[in-house]
Amino acid sequence: MIRSLYYTPGKPIRKDIPPQEFPKLTRNHRGLLWVDFADEPPETCLPILQGFGFHHLAIEDALQQTHSPKLDDWGNYLYIVLNYMTIADNGSDWETDIDELDVFLGQNYIVTHHDNPMTAIDETWDSSNRDERNLHDGADHLLYKITDKLVADYMPLVEKIDSSIDQIEDQVFDKPSPRTLEKLFALKRVLLAMRRILLPQREVMNKLARDDYQVIDPKDRIFFRDIYDHLVRLHDLNESLRDLVGGALDTYLSVINNRMNDIMKTLTIITTLFMPLAFVTGFFGMNFFEPLGLMRNWTTNPVFYIMLAITVLLPTGMYLWMRRRTWI
Amino acid sequence: MIRSLYYTPGKPIRKDIPPQEFPKLTRNHRGLLWVDFADEPPETCLPILQGFGFHHLAIEDALQQTHSPKLDDWGNYLYIVLNYMTIADNGSDWETDIDELDVFLGQNYIVTHHDNPMTAIDETWDSSNRDERNLHDGADHLLYKITDKLVADYMPLVEKIDSSIDQIEDQVFDKPSPRTLEKLFALKRVLLAMRRILLPQREVMNKLARDDYQVIDPKDRIFFRDIYDHLVRLHDLNESLRDLVGGALDTYLSVINNRMNDIMKTLTIITTLFMPLAFVTGFFGMNFFEPLGLMRNWTTNPVFYIMLAITVLLPTGMYLWMRRRTWI
Amino acid sequence: MIRSLYYTPGKPIRKDIPPQEFPKLTRNHRGLLWVDFADEPPETCLPILQGFGFHHLAIEDALQQTHSPKLDDWGNYLYIVLNYMTIADNGSDWETDIDELDVFLGQNYIVTHHDNPMTAIDETWDSSNRDERNLHDGADHLLYKITDKLVADYMPLVEKIDSSIDQIEDQVFDKPSPRTLEKLFALKRVLLAMRRILLPQREVMNKLARDDYQVIDPKDRIFFRDIYDHLVRLHDLNESLRDLVGGALDTYLSVINNRMNDIMKTLTIITTLFMPLAFVTGFFGMNFFEPLGLMRNWTTNPVFYIMLAITVLLPTGMYLWMRRRTWI
Amino acid sequence: MIRSLYYTPGKPIRKDIPPQEFPKLTRNHRGLLWVDFADEPPETCLPILQGFGFHHLAIEDALQQTHSPKLDDWGNYLYIVLNYMTIADNGSDWETDIDELDVFLGQNYIVTHHDNPMTAIDETWDSSNRDERNLHDGADHLLYKITDKLVADYMPLVEKIDSSIDQIEDQVFDKPSPRTLEKLFALKRVLLAMRRILLPQREVMNKLARDDYQVIDPKDRIFFRDIYDHLVRLHDLNESLRDLVGGALDTYLSVINNRMNDIMKTLTIITTLFMPLAFVTGFFGMNFFEPLGLMRNWTTNPVFYIMLAITVLLPTGMYLWMRRRTWI
Amino acid sequence: MIRSLYYTPGKPIRKDIPPQEFPKLTRNHRGLLWVDFADEPPETCLPILQGFGFHHLAIEDALQQTHSPKLDDWGNYLYIVLNYMTIADNGSDWETDIDELDVFLGQNYIVTHHDNPMTAIDETWDSSNRDERNLHDGADHLLYKITDKLVADYMPLVEKIDSSIDQIEDQVFDKPSPRTLEKLFALKRVLLAMRRILLPQREVMNKLARDDYQVIDPKDRIFFRDIYDHLVRLHDLNESLRDLVGGALDTYLSVINNRMNDIMKTLTIITTLFMPLAFVTGFFGMNFFEPLGLMRNWTTNPVFYIMLAITVLLPTGMYLWMRRRTWI
Repeated sequence: MIRSLYYTPGKPIRKDIPPQEFPKLTRNHRGLLWVDFADEPPETCLPILQGFGFHHLAIEDALQQTHSPKLDDWGNYLYIVLNYMTIADNGSDWETDIDELDVFLGQNYIVTHHDNPMTAIDETWDSSNRDERNLHDGADHLLYKITDKLVADYMPLVEKIDSSIDQIEDQVFDKPSPRTLEKLFALKRVLLAMRRILLPQREVMNKLARDDYQVIDPKDRIFFRDIYDHLVRLHDLNESLRDLVGGALDTYLSVINNRMNDIMKTLTIITTLFMPLAFVTGFFGMNFFEPLGLMRNWTTNPVFYIMLAITVLLPTGMYLWMRRRTWI
Repeated sequence: MIRSLYYTPGKPIRKDIPPQEFPKLTRNHRGLLWVDFADEPPETCLPILQGFGFHHLAIEDALQQTHSPKLDDWGNYLYIVLNYMTIADNGSDWETDIDELDVFLGQNYIVTHHDNPMTAIDETWDSSNRDERNLHDGADHLLYKITDKLVADYMPLVEKIDSSIDQIEDQVFDKPSPRTLEKLFALKRVLLAMRRILLPQREVMNKLARDDYQVIDPKDRIFFRDIYDHLVRLHDLNESLRDLVGGALDTYLSVINNRMNDIMKTLTIITTLFMPLAFVTGFFGMNFFEPLGLMRNWTTNPVFYIMLAITVLLPTGMYLWMRRRTWI
Repeated sequence: MIRSLYYTPGKPIRKDIPPQEFPKLTRNHRGLLWVDFADEPPETCLPILQGFGFHHLAIEDALQQTHSPKLDDWGNYLYIVLNYMTIADNGSDWETDIDELDVFLGQNYIVTHHDNPMTAIDETWDSSNRDERNLHDGADHLLYKITDKLVADYMPLVEKIDSSIDQIEDQVFDKPSPRTLEKLFALKRVLLAMRRILLPQREVMNKLARDDYQVIDPKDRIFFRDIYDHLVRLHDLNESLRDLVGGALDTYLSVINNRMNDIMKTLTIITTLFMPLAFVTGFFGMNFFEPLGLMRNWTTNPVFYIMLAITVLLPTGMYLWMRRRTWI
Repeated sequence: MIRSLYYTPGKPIRKDIPPQEFPKLTRNHRGLLWVDFADEPPETCLPILQGFGFHHLAIEDALQQTHSPKLDDWGNYLYIVLNYMTIADNGSDWETDIDELDVFLGQNYIVTHHDNPMTAIDETWDSSNRDERNLHDGADHLLYKITDKLVADYMPLVEKIDSSIDQIEDQVFDKPSPRTLEKLFALKRVLLAMRRILLPQREVMNKLARDDYQVIDPKDRIFFRDIYDHLVRLHDLNESLRDLVGGALDTYLSVINNRMNDIMKTLTIITTLFMPLAFVTGFFGMNFFEPLGLMRNWTTNPVFYIMLAITVLLPTGMYLWMRRRTWI
Repeated sequence: MIRSLYYTPGKPIRKDIPPQEFPKLTRNHRGLLWVDFADEPPETCLPILQGFGFHHLAIEDALQQTHSPKLDDWGNYLYIVLNYMTIADNGSDWETDIDELDVFLGQNYIVTHHDNPMTAIDETWDSSNRDERNLHDGADHLLYKITDKLVADYMPLVEKIDSSIDQIEDQVFDKPSPRTLEKLFALKRVLLAMRRILLPQREVMNKLARDDYQVIDPKDRIFFRDIYDHLVRLHDLNESLRDLVGGALDTYLSVINNRMNDIMKTLTIITTLFMPLAFVTGFFGMNFFEPLGLMRNWTTNPVFYIMLAITVLLPTGMYLWMRRRTWI
């Protein structure tokens, strides 16, 4: 889907402009053009992007979807790659998807290109349509609005992970199971993936906040500084969460290990107590000796029933005891 | 709660000034205004902070309580975020709480904003009220006093953790238990959290001690240098404690492992000694052979009672022996 | 094999030029000479390379094949070492081979030297032969084309490793075996080897993209910048894959550990349940007591056959149960 | 204890000068004053240090004894904090004590402050008293002599640790015991503590050797460079020792693990061999079958004595065998 | 042993010059003096070195043999410390020896000092004697030749370690034994020691290749650059080998762990199968029941011999099976 939006102060917003008009509109320095490509095949995007006069290396990068967050300064426009993350929580496994947002930012236009629908883009689009004051501050401010929303979207994700860890930490001591482990490894993977995209995005924001670019109004840098600070904070939270996951993993292993020790101890105690006894009874069961007949009352029916009861009750009792200790 | 305090040399200290007067007071360069917001809802803080003319991004940061320690230079005022830590020791678990202190420091005013009561703020407030010499050296010196107290408050915490580790180290060799492990993991978490806030705060102090700011008197930098040194020291102590906790964890696991080895050794020895014997006695207990009758005195009553005594005393003895080795 | 190719605008491409002519041809600033040494013994290469006037240290480096990727600026020519990787997947073991490509890049000539056949060189050679437009942009652009292909060749490799890891991750939970471990260690080794050559190659590209060299046209730097970005991306992917392998290893060990715990638990439970019973039956099997004769019907033929059936069915059942739990 | 020493070229050394005279003496640029505070309460030190005109922050730092090695340049004097280490070897546990030496170095005076007796100070003091040539080169050279001795004192310590590790490494393979582990953890702790004070002291020496200070004669920098090199060497040795301790720990755990495996193997072999046999003998011991009487000679007295001998000799033999394998 | 060599262009090489002449010879700027001290006691070296006018700190460093590789620029001469490594392979243990080479490099002289015989020195000495062209390029080029040989000597060492690791890797999967572990730990130690001396030597070469020294001809820097590249390559190889050792260790532990699991599984299976059976046979062996006499043919001689055969063949078979699985 290609959608476009053109704003000139004092005039109504034009929508769905034919692509052929884009080059002409960018020449009007008082207007602001936003073109958004969502899940559009490269064939359709290529000619339009070429129409803007972008370098073919930048266009290739945008269409190949294989880049890490970066910022390339091409003089009269910037090519920016950002990443966004979606997580589908299927019970124990967290499916993470990292997608790419390519932005071409010119003096009076912004071109966004992405494969999957993005709430950050959609919300900014809608609010721009609703209220043209959002378009008042130029293309760089529009970029700020989009990135601000994109970064803000990490927060609920981080909170969801946080509450997941809390839940798991409680389980670890009470009822450690292989599924706990699976969940922890899944969380670890998600946090690693997030860390990998937070760091270079932070760097991109740092550049926007600090360096001198032709298409960024120096007094707008403060806004990118603010996003940079948010990313620093997110990175910190990510580190904390990774520490918590690491700690939970260590705890899990220690708890399992302790339980194992308990089990081995019981095995050893039982064996140590009964093995010598088995020898003693075995010794007196050998055929060297003949029964005397004096103790025949030990082999009467009542004794037999008591013995039968013991053979049933003893293992049942032990079974229940082990159950209470959550071994089984 | 909002409280304010205004000092002009030679005049009595004014308190609880109506917020409307703040902007006017800040224009008098000889006075010193301190406004403190404690656990105040954003709605009340917002207009007052706007009255000071702070940038809306800085105000947002202050009201959202989600930032890491940082320092933003806005020219005629500084926006500083600091963290403080409170720990509630509930037996094995140390509940840590990290709160945020936002400071706006101007030439002749200081605005502090925090959600929970802070001893560092309260003590400085009280001493300022008691003795106006504390207000004599300007707003930057007041900031020094607050941060000095804030940093000094870490020391008893560190000492408490230190003595906890000492205690645990003794337990590890004598009586390792899963609870020891829980405590160690809790301490590890606290130390990690502390490290996370010490490092950026150190950086903030470093900036105050080194860089040139409009609102910091160059000859006051030496004081922030001193706090910086304290934070370096605290960070060193934190590292040492983390090493000690790490060492205690390793020791715990090794002790447990050694104990496990001991237990397995006993199991193996007992099994190895008695299994072949069980075969021997089993062999002569088979019905191929008939008792001879010559050794009937082995099945008399006295022998039976001796045998009974053995079956009672042997496991009891083993049980006591295992108990002495603290297996049970 | 030595092959050479000489292009002057407007004339047909000359091939297999006698080595004696090389020095003369390099003096024509409008032409472009490419000499490629493939698996040629040092004795043959030495005089030809000396004919170009290269420093003897650079020639030694090129002929010894023992260098890491690097770039030496010798003024009127560059000496560049690159690495390429071939992987032969023999079932569980991935045989990696790292080979060296030496490049001498002058204003109007490029000399490539390698021991094994390289697809990146061969493809560029063929396309240059086919279409002389490839030679149009000078020696530095030819280097770009070669390195671009060389770097692009990593991608299918990375994808192959990625799908291998996916496959292994599924096995780890379902059917962990020592072979899984072997495969993981093999992948880990491959990724480490790749990382080792990606990092210095990235640095070489960074230098070509950033620094000022006599033989690199400043407006071609953007192309090396693009390769640099690809290497950054590859390095990122490599890191991700190494994390995945690390995670799979941890998971493997945890799964094995969990299984071990399960097995030990079963051992303990069985021992704990039956050992005391063995004592009880042993006790009443001693020769102190004489059978009464009242319960002779317990030793009749039907009972014997039932007992026989139990001794066959019980272990068979347990065996099948253990099998279903994939212990055996 | 406060002791002082005043040297003017050509005059005898004055000792135990009343503190009131210190300020006056420091004004004579040809003399050299050394004041040493050893284990003196802060109350006594404070007025004397103030008499020298030191900044109150520096005095506070000196009296509080809580600082890491550092160097503060106060213009006409330097405030330097150094650490020294004493180790008491109580069998398995190495008690380490880290103390602080505070130095104020002026153009023609040096003030040292420490809590515990220090051989480096005492020796320099004695040699200064004995031979005034030691005082000839000014205060900075005196500082060099003190730090040179202080750093030289680490060497015997390092050698002692080295020989301890050698001893332990031999034990690890021959007779690993939990005490070996305790010793290793103690050594690890000592080495970590040493590393922590070596690094910042190295930095202090680096500053003295490299930077420009008013009170350090530029041609004396070479001496501090020499101490710096010694600290580099010590740090290297420390790293090597830490590697050795780490290696010994790994070896210990592996040896223990191998031994454990051996033990488990034995257990499994014995159980695997005798359990089926126990079933076989148990089977023929059931009361379904009646002895035939034909094999009564298997239950005669000689056989019984042989059997008794086996039940005594078999476990004794196994016990001795296990002992020879150092399991018990 | 002290040996010396003096070359002036056009004259025969003088040997074994009396030390008194050294200072005079160094004053002739067209000559080249090389003095080599091999295993000479400090007493003999000291006066000769002082004769050259070296700083007493540099002489002390040279005679004490306790320094890490470093380079000190003393203006008209350089003091350089290099390390070389000798390894004696005593079966499982690799005895590494790290020795020190001290070099004083002046404009027209070089002084080398070492305790053990060094092939790099001896070979350069011999080739200098044989062919005076080696002395033609001055003292700095002589230093290049010595260091070039010294660095080249690492290569066979590295290859030897490489083949050792290959051998061990094969053993790890086929026949892991504690000796394998010992060898791995020994290799790890050697590689760590090598890494420790490679890194600072690389730094020394980097300085010689990059910085401006009075005694190094700028156009000779390229040679030190070449040695620097060799050291970079050696460091890379060292890293790779350390990774391989690390991987082999992990594999060893995993293989041992897997084997352990196999053993435990067998134990559990055997116990689980036979314990219930033992109870069953024990149950019917109790004296409650009297044999019926109907199944007396189960206790006849043939059955007895079959049973005896089983008790011999069953454990023998299991023993052989375990042996084939290389447990014993």
